[in-house]
Amino acid sequence: MNPICPIPIQKYPHILLSHGGGGKMMSQLIQEMFISAFDNPLLKQGHDSALIDLPQNRIALTTDSYVINPLFFPGGDIASLAIYGTVNDLAMAGARPLYLSVGFILEEGLCMETLWNLILSMREAAERCQVKIVTGDTKVVNRGKGDGIYINTSGVGLLETKHSICPQSIQEGDVILLSGDLGRHGVAVMAFREGLEFETKLQSDLAPLHDLVKCLMDSGVVIHCMRDLTRGGLGSALIELAETSKFFFEIEEKSIPLCEDVEAACEILGLDPLFVANEGRFVLFVSPQDQEKALNILRSHPLGENAVKIGEVKSQLIAPVILKSKIGVARILDFISGEQLPRIC
Amino acid sequence: MNPICPIPIQKYPHILLSHGGGGKMMSQLIQEMFISAFDNPLLKQGHDSALIDLPQNRIALTTDSYVINPLFFPGGDIASLAIYGTVNDLAMAGARPLYLSVGFILEEGLCMETLWNLILSMREAAERCQVKIVTGDTKVVNRGKGDGIYINTSGVGLLETKHSICPQSIQEGDVILLSGDLGRHGVAVMAFREGLEFETKLQSDLAPLHDLVKCLMDSGVVIHCMRDLTRGGLGSALIELAETSKFFFEIEEKSIPLCEDVEAACEILGLDPLFVANEGRFVLFVSPQDQEKALNILRSHPLGENAVKIGEVKSQLIAPVILKSKIGVARILDFISGEQLPRIC
Repeated sequence: MNPICPIPIQKYPHILLSHGGGGKMMSQLIQEMFISAFDNPLLKQGHDSALIDLPQNRIALTTDSYVINPLFFPGGDIASLAIYGTVNDLAMAGARPLYLSVGFILEEGLCMETLWNLILSMREAAERCQVKIVTGDTKVVNRGKGDGIYINTSGVGLLETKHSICPQSIQEGDVILLSGDLGRHGVAVMAFREGLEFETKLQSDLAPLHDLVKCLMDSGVVIHCMRDLTRGGLGSALIELAETSKFFFEIEEKSIPLCEDVEAACEILGLDPLFVANEGRFVLFVSPQDQEKALNILRSHPLGENAVKIGEVKSQLIAPVILKSKIGVARILDFISGEQLPRIC
Repeated sequence: MNPICPIPIQKYPHILLSHGGGGKMMSQLIQEMFISAFDNPLLKQGHDSALIDLPQNRIALTTDSYVINPLFFPGGDIASLAIYGTVNDLAMAGARPLYLSVGFILEEGLCMETLWNLILSMREAAERCQVKIVTGDTKVVNRGKGDGIYINTSGVGLLETKHSICPQSIQEGDVILLSGDLGRHGVAVMAFREGLEFETKLQSDLAPLHDLVKCLMDSGVVIHCMRDLTRGGLGSALIELAETSKFFFEIEEKSIPLCEDVEAACEILGLDPLFVANEGRFVLFVSPQDQEKALNILRSHPLGENAVKIGEVKSQLIAPVILKSKIGVARILDFISGEQLPRIC
């Protein structure tokens, strides 16, 4: 491997907030620095969980650090997010979430009561998902070298299907389904942070998706790929999946559901809801013959009641993801360079 | 579960650096808050790795966050430490380390070149241990909310022996072996941080222990328990293991090897070398009949050449760990309350 730093140091001498934003700069950092350096077929799967063959069993392994600010937000907190986020990454691989590790990085001066409330929230979230926290680690850093608490959760899930649910299983002709309306998490956190108020009380869509995924899989729907729409939102997820799968996606913008508050907030704040973070929404790729069955199952579950078909997988288009806008114009969907809302997860 | 915070908030309203120090306060935080809240048999194993039964395979799962300051120190850096530390936690459970996840928390403003050098070091360390980094996560926090870089690594290893290598397998009469001299990591980092100089260039003992453990296991030595001597050093490890196993350990202080530089530095700085961190040393518990074989194997490996027997497991003593000092006096070994050296790992 070439030992020269693959990101031009003169242009980017330092890490910027946008290197963590789920956009182009983060993608470049991960692809050119991490994946090229740690090169191996499992890492290259380009999936939120690695799918691992043990001698007899197949497992998924995933990790996420949570640095959201503020620690408590409408609809959740950093601790429940750390459980649901990692459970969702396992669920998106079609794995049954089983075991979690938790690593706390505590800042000197964190209120003991805050920590205890977060632990109680974490416990409740883990119980809801029927996952066990089986190992952990605690570090304390000096005051001013953290931000209250950062949490890493890693998760192990059991893969029970024969076929892999991953970007490489996407096929030409697949329909692309979306489990619900977009942008609630990002807008709720942003509004809370900035002291904005809406007529209705907008809450994060934070939720564990394992049960909904189980309903889909138990029904016999053959899921080719799933992806939860966290940092970077639907837009970034689609671009990443198109690039990894080497296919092209055509998306109908008018089919994408948005609630009124999110739409209004995005207009006022100049945000593109396609790139706003969610914590309880996902896309899935299935064959056209499974479309109706999948939509019925999604819509009969509380976490998928607004599910819709948003697009199709094509073998050839002028760009990885084409968005057919409401007025009929096609535009190329591209990563935003940085992030609209830093530290959203 | 009682929802009242189990640590008295009036006495400890805030997290202190000593809550991360590997001593009594950290033990209390983990036992009373984390383990009681997340209660389950796997977590209660009180081991650095959780031993997990899948339908056919048995795996170990471990996690550690690394917050060491400075990022580069004599004998290593935070990235190689993040690989070896987690590999060692798996090895201590008798697992073959296979797969790692990596979670980066980068501070806005971190030098890109520093990050690249750490990635190269991490790659080299992973290759040396023949482990694959299969999944990862990157977050960026605002300037002043981190300290350059924090790294979490979680690891999965395969358990191939029938018996469990864990504190619960310690037996009365077991001999306690130590793989080498103590305190090099803590003293090297401390000296570097404070600008102290020694006649010889003291380096951290940072090293991956998986190969040495493999040699022991391949030889047929039946290892009852192992523990690497990181934060809190030999002293804290022995107290924790005695408490978890419900046995008592009698340790001969004069048998514990120390190199001259560490002994001198500890005298000058007022440190107790028994509680100084190591990153390439461990204790192991075996039956008396395996003692000679185990010591021979340890001593024929570069990472165990100074291995010695330091004590025995008893059914009854006046305290969990008794240290018979060089002048023949017995003293009760107790956790130090906080930490001698913060952010050592």
